[in-house]
Amino acid sequence: MFKDITPVLQHPSAFKEAIHHLAERAASHNPDVIVGIESRGFIFGVPIALELGLPFGLTRKLGKLPYDRITEEYALEYGTNTIEMHVDAIAPGERAYVVDDLLATGGTAAATARLIERLRGEICAFGFLVELEFLEGRKNLLGYQVDSLITY
Amino acid sequence: MFKDITPVLQHPSAFKEAIHHLAERAASHNPDVIVGIESRGFIFGVPIALELGLPFGLTRKLGKLPYDRITEEYALEYGTNTIEMHVDAIAPGERAYVVDDLLATGGTAAATARLIERLRGEICAFGFLVELEFLEGRKNLLGYQVDSLITY
Repeated sequence: MFKDITPVLQHPSAFKEAIHHLAERAASHNPDVIVGIESRGFIFGVPIALELGLPFGLTRKLGKLPYDRITEEYALEYGTNTIEMHVDAIAPGERAYVVDDLLATGGTAAATARLIERLRGEICAFGFLVELEFLEGRKNLLGYQVDSLITY
Repeated sequence: MFKDITPVLQHPSAFKEAIHHLAERAASHNPDVIVGIESRGFIFGVPIALELGLPFGLTRKLGKLPYDRITEEYALEYGTNTIEMHVDAIAPGERAYVVDDLLATGGTAAATARLIERLRGEICAFGFLVELEFLEGRKNLLGYQVDSLITY
């Protein structure tokens, strides 16, 4: 269940190519801001933002953001988890491209969408390096566009 | 005590410039690999690795790495925390440049140095966006070279 993305990071040319492909997909949706989901979403989201010259916003686990923030819960197999976003991470009307390394059940991604929409931003699409299709994460992201580079 | 780095991320030209300056410092130490400390170290370490065409290795909090790993504890104000690194993140003799956003007390950075040295790698230097000098983090990093872009 746990796909290990660290080998990609150890190979600069493979990593650069993955970033470049994801950045191309992102650009096709015309985003105003790239949002990365803590913490592996930072690894892919930050270089996409830099390649496209766009601001980078982030969601973090509970209690880690220093400024005014909003909060969403999502279900885990047992219990719940909480993510937060700064209230100034998205301006009303901005189009966000949301990046994470892996689409599994889609719970974190859906919670991120709720955070962005509460700030009156718009999700132009989600981008994942890897999608685990058998977990049907897209069912949690109905109505959104979803890019994934690699599907299992 | 908590410096908020998110405004830098919202300004692509400022963020690019910070990365470029850190990458220049990193390059001057001739590293073989860039190591980022979870999770804000990913935000600065990944683009430095990409700019220099180097592999990126990471340390993560306890229980988040899927492959064989080694573990180090460090002291917090109350209690301890644990970070881990994959055993293949560093090859013996490789020179690592260790990146984080903030040098505070230096506990996490020193624990990262111990992980890298247990894998028989070498620390060529540490790089931080911000150093809080009054916390004297360099005392925890004696014998190492330390770069910081901004000092308070």
